[in-house]
Amino acid sequence: MNAVILSTGDELVLGQTVDTNSAWLSQQLAAIGCAVAAHVTIADDQAVIQRAISEAAATADFLIVTGGLGPTLDDLTRQAIAGVLNVPLELSESALAQITEYFRSRGRPMAAINRVQAMLPRGANLIENKHGTAPGIDAIYKTGTHSCRIFCTPGVPSEMMHMFHRSIAPQLSAAGGGGVILSRTLHTFGIGESIIGEMLGPLMDRTRNPSVGTTVSGFGVSLRINARFSDRNAAERELDRTSKECSAVLGALIYGQDEQTLAGIVGELLLSAPDGPRSVAVAESLTGGLVAKMLTDVPGSSRYFQRGWVTYSNEAKTQMLGVDPDLFTRHGAVSEPVVLAMAAGARRQSKADYALALSGVAGPDGGSPEKPVGTVCIALEHPTGALARTFRLVGDRFAIRDRSAKTALSLLRYQLLGISSPF
Amino acid sequence: MNAVILSTGDELVLGQTVDTNSAWLSQQLAAIGCAVAAHVTIADDQAVIQRAISEAAATADFLIVTGGLGPTLDDLTRQAIAGVLNVPLELSESALAQITEYFRSRGRPMAAINRVQAMLPRGANLIENKHGTAPGIDAIYKTGTHSCRIFCTPGVPSEMMHMFHRSIAPQLSAAGGGGVILSRTLHTFGIGESIIGEMLGPLMDRTRNPSVGTTVSGFGVSLRINARFSDRNAAERELDRTSKECSAVLGALIYGQDEQTLAGIVGELLLSAPDGPRSVAVAESLTGGLVAKMLTDVPGSSRYFQRGWVTYSNEAKTQMLGVDPDLFTRHGAVSEPVVLAMAAGARRQSKADYALALSGVAGPDGGSPEKPVGTVCIALEHPTGALARTFRLVGDRFAIRDRSAKTALSLLRYQLLGISSPF
Repeated sequence: MNAVILSTGDELVLGQTVDTNSAWLSQQLAAIGCAVAAHVTIADDQAVIQRAISEAAATADFLIVTGGLGPTLDDLTRQAIAGVLNVPLELSESALAQITEYFRSRGRPMAAINRVQAMLPRGANLIENKHGTAPGIDAIYKTGTHSCRIFCTPGVPSEMMHMFHRSIAPQLSAAGGGGVILSRTLHTFGIGESIIGEMLGPLMDRTRNPSVGTTVSGFGVSLRINARFSDRNAAERELDRTSKECSAVLGALIYGQDEQTLAGIVGELLLSAPDGPRSVAVAESLTGGLVAKMLTDVPGSSRYFQRGWVTYSNEAKTQMLGVDPDLFTRHGAVSEPVVLAMAAGARRQSKADYALALSGVAGPDGGSPEKPVGTVCIALEHPTGALARTFRLVGDRFAIRDRSAKTALSLLRYQLLGISSPF
Repeated sequence: MNAVILSTGDELVLGQTVDTNSAWLSQQLAAIGCAVAAHVTIADDQAVIQRAISEAAATADFLIVTGGLGPTLDDLTRQAIAGVLNVPLELSESALAQITEYFRSRGRPMAAINRVQAMLPRGANLIENKHGTAPGIDAIYKTGTHSCRIFCTPGVPSEMMHMFHRSIAPQLSAAGGGGVILSRTLHTFGIGESIIGEMLGPLMDRTRNPSVGTTVSGFGVSLRINARFSDRNAAERELDRTSKECSAVLGALIYGQDEQTLAGIVGELLLSAPDGPRSVAVAESLTGGLVAKMLTDVPGSSRYFQRGWVTYSNEAKTQMLGVDPDLFTRHGAVSEPVVLAMAAGARRQSKADYALALSGVAGPDGGSPEKPVGTVCIALEHPTGALARTFRLVGDRFAIRDRSAKTALSLLRYQLLGISSPF
């Protein structure tokens, strides 16, 4: 069972947008044992799309086409499918009803050009889109004895992902035979890739199955474990075994796996604290709301996070958190005494069990010889005391802010685990 | 003059790595007037690579192959090129000298397996690699009267980029008859793609040059304008002209272009207000710090943003912003009276000129029949009054929070522009 992924869009072949859909789809297909033979990316040109569909469908069992289902003139996938199948486009009453309902339920007017999205190649089936106006297309292309099932989805990643999970994956799983590739990703933060690699040693041998590789992502290092077995039970068992071996080597450096985030793990630790649920408040200068944003990205975070302060000026730090103005004069706004005072003010006012505070120089301007861009102070006040750390982080403004926020969450995580942080 | 970009690597077709090389190369090629017909991504399999090279080289003027030049057994590009050209691989003394020198100058021992990187298909030329051990390959493939120039580079982005700039781009520019593709992206937010498409009408004609296309990105709709001309001056002039035509049709719906963000534009408007610089404060429930984070993503934002409150519980809204608890009882936390009181509290305490406040149901839980997931209230208090709006947004938690934050920034933008918002 093999598949080709075809992405359409001028913005892709012009390099204005990086195609992330194909990688995502490949991961999903691998997980259900469908090998991906190729990704092909082409422009919004009907003749080119038709030729690419014909070529891919001639050998692949499945073809997934993303993009080109919107309502505008540069959306040409439905016309191309009709052209390849040599059938006319027809108005699908059920598609029209779905699109009409999509607009009605949102209280928005439906533009006349959205009607074109209800056109389907004759004989093709509709794939419902619960997250946008463009229905997908499910068609079969036959050449001689070979037949290829073609699924078309919108290019908008969220719509494509929902449609894949809901309507395409079940069909592929049903059609699939043997062999699976199961993957798991283990996440670390705060330690370099080469040190992780040295610690893992022979676990990273390329001939090993399951294999273990490292990638740098989100300013942390993640371990990717791939298990290729003919049997799903064997794959699951070996994936578990290798995960445990990696965990035995890296210990608490691993904070979570797959979709888990540092903020989500911190939330779980707060809720499951031995003496009952705990709460956290944040006071942010340099990160300007990013730590609070990460905490509240997590559904249900209101159970342990209620308050945050963004104090971007010294006056705000004094008026909102009660920081003694003398501290700015004596130590500067980016200093351990100031972040300790910010954390104390946030914890006192919120009555939270833990309070994090951050101040620093995110750049590109504002650095000095003594405190260059990347200088970051983080404090954590907890029920039995407080700690503060100063870091010298590298990277641009985005990197420094992101690393700072994750470093603060890591400090809280180690505190909740009751072990000292490695940084 | 057209090109195909071929990327090789198991990690790409397995979706473990997103291919960013192809987008980068496409941008470079467009800038020197070389149209990219397709990106093709395939696994580390010599037969598959040979077939892909033969197919692409049959029609393209240029083929750029990335990846597969390393020293290990899964690096198969040089063998595939030799196979396609039907010539043997030969040791290149100059390639061997370069690789040896690369290791010597870094004081590292050269492993025996690196010798394979000095093998070149007979008749092909070497492309020097100053940033790694793998030399590139420059070869010509002829079929009948058509000939295709093939450049092979390593897959490591930094090595590929250096090799492209130093050795490949000059050859392409020399071969090309001039001609450039210049691009610009105009950003809108808050209006659907179909309405934008209807408004633009004939500007989106597929045969037009410059062409105008729309894409949904970051929950807004962006217009991509591509101008293809033989002469750079003509391309610049026509790109400007079409941009102005789009702006004339869409007016204030366009908030910025290319790398500009809504928060950055809001910052510029605050700083350039007619009666002197203005400031903004934010009070966030549902977005939990995201609006403050977007504002402070912008370097220099401390000139107009000093304070934010994250009030995730009702008690926090009352204690931190002075919201009357009766309002929760009478209207609920997600209501226009509550966000108006939050904005008033934030503006009063911060003495900022503008204050934004947001409350809503981000989901996945917390919805009710009356206020389902996606119900969002946003208030803006300004120097001469206040306004509040209620929205019914669609999507998952991430989408609802992102759209809410951008909608709030848009409301402020329209207020600063002195025109009423379209939503």
